[in-house]
Amino acid sequence: MKLKAEDLAGMETRARAAFVNCLSGFKSANLVGTRNAEGKTNLAIMSSTVHLGSHPPLLGLVVRPGGDERHTLRNILETGVYSLNHVHSDFIAAAHQTAARYPSETSEFDEAGLTPTWEDGFAAPLVLEAKVRLGMELREHMPLEVNNTHLVIGEVVLAEVPEGSQRSDGSLDLVAAGSVALSGLDAYHEGVELKRMAYAKPGMPPRQI
Amino acid sequence: MKLKAEDLAGMETRARAAFVNCLSGFKSANLVGTRNAEGKTNLAIMSSTVHLGSHPPLLGLVVRPGGDERHTLRNILETGVYSLNHVHSDFIAAAHQTAARYPSETSEFDEAGLTPTWEDGFAAPLVLEAKVRLGMELREHMPLEVNNTHLVIGEVVLAEVPEGSQRSDGSLDLVAAGSVALSGLDAYHEGVELKRMAYAKPGMPPRQI
Repeated sequence: MKLKAEDLAGMETRARAAFVNCLSGFKSANLVGTRNAEGKTNLAIMSSTVHLGSHPPLLGLVVRPGGDERHTLRNILETGVYSLNHVHSDFIAAAHQTAARYPSETSEFDEAGLTPTWEDGFAAPLVLEAKVRLGMELREHMPLEVNNTHLVIGEVVLAEVPEGSQRSDGSLDLVAAGSVALSGLDAYHEGVELKRMAYAKPGMPPRQI
Repeated sequence: MKLKAEDLAGMETRARAAFVNCLSGFKSANLVGTRNAEGKTNLAIMSSTVHLGSHPPLLGLVVRPGGDERHTLRNILETGVYSLNHVHSDFIAAAHQTAARYPSETSEFDEAGLTPTWEDGFAAPLVLEAKVRLGMELREHMPLEVNNTHLVIGEVVLAEVPEGSQRSDGSLDLVAAGSVALSGLDAYHEGVELKRMAYAKPGMPPRQI
């Protein structure tokens, strides 16, 4: 099936959102934990985390204006910190529920039944139920004028991962950690490892690790 | 296991790259197809595609300077177009091989054994072996000064997806399409769907579709 720009523009709004959200491929599923200057916590599921670099360890997060994500962005800009918490297969429904547009008086932690946990010296809540939890410090905020979204760039200042999930080469076994992958707006998947590939070099055929 | 900023800074370079690349969670695996002004084609695997919006349909791509990705960025800026092609389970090894730092005289299509295919009126090569193929037009290029990476923002002007992979709500079944998910630098996974969740609303418990 082949769709051109005019076909995409002509799709019904919800169908287009469902379709276009699938086009990038599988996505991460992270709960973004924040609190505002008064200490009110907020939690929002997002699939737009992107790796920017490992030294310093930087991750980007695309945040749309409006809805719950507006609270998230405001809180990040107010406090300079946020957490990223992997969604795992045992709390998909609770994580997804944080996408509901709750009024600012309520905390999505309470509404979704997830538990805030705190680290000394870090002002944003992390998610107790998550096995991979990151404490992030805001490094740069760039409004993207092309469609009024915002790119939030943060540095990983704290990483909590399950004991035994780190391989000898430093990498993390996300299958063992039970992290899930999102596709589109609502489909949650576990990963089944097919292959690990050795570092690619010219003149050398591809090799599995 | 808990790592702080100083622990991450103290890791051996390769181990840190392997570790930090896993922290965002599962990632998309896309082959980025370009050609330069002279018509020379280039193909590079990247895991940094991020959804920006569906109307207009915009995707971001984080490109690092150096290595093969330098050719990709230069070609995108020269021609204004590029393709994104999902990696599927049947050509993981070939796709991974495009990460090797080939000299600019060679094309990764030839080196990896993948086949360029062309669409009328679109100046970048797509990958014949991919079942989900996107033609992208450059909309914005933002250097990210924080670590000298580049954010390339493009609009989807062409989307080719397998017949029968689109569900009635508009979404795409990436499991049926055979798209794979990356974790870290080298681990490729197939997805197994666990749950699809209905649109979340305050006052309504989470429901599966």
